[in-house]
Amino acid sequence: METIINPSKAQWSEILQRPTKTIDDIENTVTQIFDDVKRNGDKAVSKYTSLFDGVDLESSLVTSSEIQKAVESVPSELKQAIQLAKANIETFHAAQKTQNVDVETTKGVRCWQEKRAIQKIGLYIPGGTAPLFSTVLMLAVPAKIAGCTEIILCSPPNKNGQIANEILYAAQLCGVTKIYKVGGIQAIASLTFGTETIPQVYKIFGPGNQFVTVAKQLATKYGVAIDMPAGPSELLVFADDSANAAFVASDLLSQAEHGTDSQVILVTTSKAMASQVEDEVKKQLQVLPRKSVAEQSISNSKIVYLNSIAEALELINEYAPEHFIVCAKDEAFFIDGIINAGSVFIGNYTPESAGDYASGTNHTLPTNGFSKSYSGVNLDSFTKSITFQKISEEGIKNIGQSIELMAEAEGLQAHKNAVTIRLNTLKL
Amino acid sequence: METIINPSKAQWSEILQRPTKTIDDIENTVTQIFDDVKRNGDKAVSKYTSLFDGVDLESSLVTSSEIQKAVESVPSELKQAIQLAKANIETFHAAQKTQNVDVETTKGVRCWQEKRAIQKIGLYIPGGTAPLFSTVLMLAVPAKIAGCTEIILCSPPNKNGQIANEILYAAQLCGVTKIYKVGGIQAIASLTFGTETIPQVYKIFGPGNQFVTVAKQLATKYGVAIDMPAGPSELLVFADDSANAAFVASDLLSQAEHGTDSQVILVTTSKAMASQVEDEVKKQLQVLPRKSVAEQSISNSKIVYLNSIAEALELINEYAPEHFIVCAKDEAFFIDGIINAGSVFIGNYTPESAGDYASGTNHTLPTNGFSKSYSGVNLDSFTKSITFQKISEEGIKNIGQSIELMAEAEGLQAHKNAVTIRLNTLKL
Repeated sequence: METIINPSKAQWSEILQRPTKTIDDIENTVTQIFDDVKRNGDKAVSKYTSLFDGVDLESSLVTSSEIQKAVESVPSELKQAIQLAKANIETFHAAQKTQNVDVETTKGVRCWQEKRAIQKIGLYIPGGTAPLFSTVLMLAVPAKIAGCTEIILCSPPNKNGQIANEILYAAQLCGVTKIYKVGGIQAIASLTFGTETIPQVYKIFGPGNQFVTVAKQLATKYGVAIDMPAGPSELLVFADDSANAAFVASDLLSQAEHGTDSQVILVTTSKAMASQVEDEVKKQLQVLPRKSVAEQSISNSKIVYLNSIAEALELINEYAPEHFIVCAKDEAFFIDGIINAGSVFIGNYTPESAGDYASGTNHTLPTNGFSKSYSGVNLDSFTKSITFQKISEEGIKNIGQSIELMAEAEGLQAHKNAVTIRLNTLKL
Repeated sequence: METIINPSKAQWSEILQRPTKTIDDIENTVTQIFDDVKRNGDKAVSKYTSLFDGVDLESSLVTSSEIQKAVESVPSELKQAIQLAKANIETFHAAQKTQNVDVETTKGVRCWQEKRAIQKIGLYIPGGTAPLFSTVLMLAVPAKIAGCTEIILCSPPNKNGQIANEILYAAQLCGVTKIYKVGGIQAIASLTFGTETIPQVYKIFGPGNQFVTVAKQLATKYGVAIDMPAGPSELLVFADDSANAAFVASDLLSQAEHGTDSQVILVTTSKAMASQVEDEVKKQLQVLPRKSVAEQSISNSKIVYLNSIAEALELINEYAPEHFIVCAKDEAFFIDGIINAGSVFIGNYTPESAGDYASGTNHTLPTNGFSKSYSGVNLDSFTKSITFQKISEEGIKNIGQSIELMAEAEGLQAHKNAVTIRLNTLKL
């Protein structure tokens, strides 16, 4: 890890630079596959499943007997762990329900706001060596609470034409409506246009590689909403002398194992802590099964020493981390002052892993500085708010003239007329 | 207006088809201007202002003396109308503030969610013959309530190098921080990258022509969020025998005058109402100053007669109108059953104009069927929610083993270690 002592503000943007990727060359591939799926539906999907996943499927729909078998195969200890996580995620997301907002803004003018569930949603769960079933919980649980009626899950099949048992178990536990063995660009294209087998949805959620990310971006051009733009996962830890260096090192490594492009930054006001963490990282790294991945992302990561917590907070808000761990004597200073972060983990016994799996918060979070403008996935991600208004005769008398004046000043006479014609009937 | 009696469901999608535009040929222009502004900043911006707006400006920043003069020029009657509208918009959007969500999901595991304002936002206000100052209110008022610290407004200058007085008045009234005379693609590019004069922002709001729409879409590629994708404005009215045909016609025409691509649909269960509205539209159309525009969009518009309100509601949810007016005996049926709409106007004295200007609801709404997945602009559009968690020693004992099991099953050993290392210290 590179240690940087008291960098000037002019250096910050360089220090905080994220790994960037060019996506321009991917875009052509994505556009071609979208066009093909739009035109040829299931036939195109099968072709790409055969090409990219190396398997020919009779049908992409997972059957109920496949789900049944998967449920039986998951060890009961793991099932209990998943159930505990689900219960906590449910508790936290159910608490996010809001009441209707209902106000009389002027006498006779009643305005209100209600949230309604997005009816049809798609969840994308990546495949690969490790089954990311925790993401199924993070997306399907709030979707169910929100009241989405169609929850469609797509995940690529392995060489045997199967989706991991843990993913199928989590999906049925959380009330996913339909599960399809389809991955990558062709999955996002299917959810965007619909095929003979796979239904079209209104919003697509979930992580994925850069192909999936570009495909989700393209989906928005066709009127499908997405949860948020995605980038490599990242963690920033602030630690002072009150932190435990071994714990901090374990957190940095848990982020570093995600991928070689993961970002890990330690900000500290203690030179002693900086060097202790560095030693601990070296020690703990040795025993990791994903050592080579973690080693590479750790070698790109940075320790930034700053003189004051005020300056530290400023730098952290400038970076806008996805995950932010605070182990500080004055933790309230950071809690009150943090403006740009996806999820904040406070104190020595709050590892990022807790939020990744089981504490109840969502792990689908804005990376790449997007926490400056985006929320992580939460209950509202699965709803949209609709406004309603009902105006009485008295109400239109109270605000009618203002509407007429404003509409006229904007040159919109028919907008004015819609009020005038009503006011005239009330003058009789 | 074309009247369609009891169409079969198979015909719905054709009837509800929106006017489409191809944007592919615009994309090249937008990309070029973005590249130029990114590289050459203010110099590029001046060039395009000269080219597209026909004016050479010394500086794009509106000075405080220009604002002062504009404020003095707006007639006091119009000022009062704008102030009344502002007060109602404030009341309704301030009521949308939510409390922090704070839960102990498991003993010792505290999770909470807080909303923080997006610090830097950009508002785009189109120019043209009519100054759309009402949109300034709709965007700047909630931004101010949310606590955004930099509220940057861009609007194209006229041939004299000026922005309309009403826009400047509304901007200063609502606490806009800085106003720039820059329009079109170059405005969106400036807000995306920042120039020597114009600050970079995190999220861009506001309507615009198709160039602005494509530019906003491109901005998202560079990490800037946008309010929502935009399309031509649209209105769907449901009216039965309890409606007033003249009022309904005035509402249809107020939508139709927006542009030749505006969409207007009347759904009814009364054949008498259908023909009365048609007659009224013809009559009222004659006296409109924007008659030629309204005439053309009315000629593309449709009246759909259906036998039952159940079928009507189904068709309306399928269409997902931006604006939805309900004048029905059983209005509760529609209020309870509407799932996809931007804003709903209920009863004979609630014209769409009220929500466009002064009732308090927002007029920046999802068009083009986007109300299936998007909300209109509301207070939350100017904030993002951050989750926080703090776990005690007892808390990590309660959920630690579940995290270990799940992390291991996902093949993420360092995620497990971050918990194990903590649990081990608690066993001593």
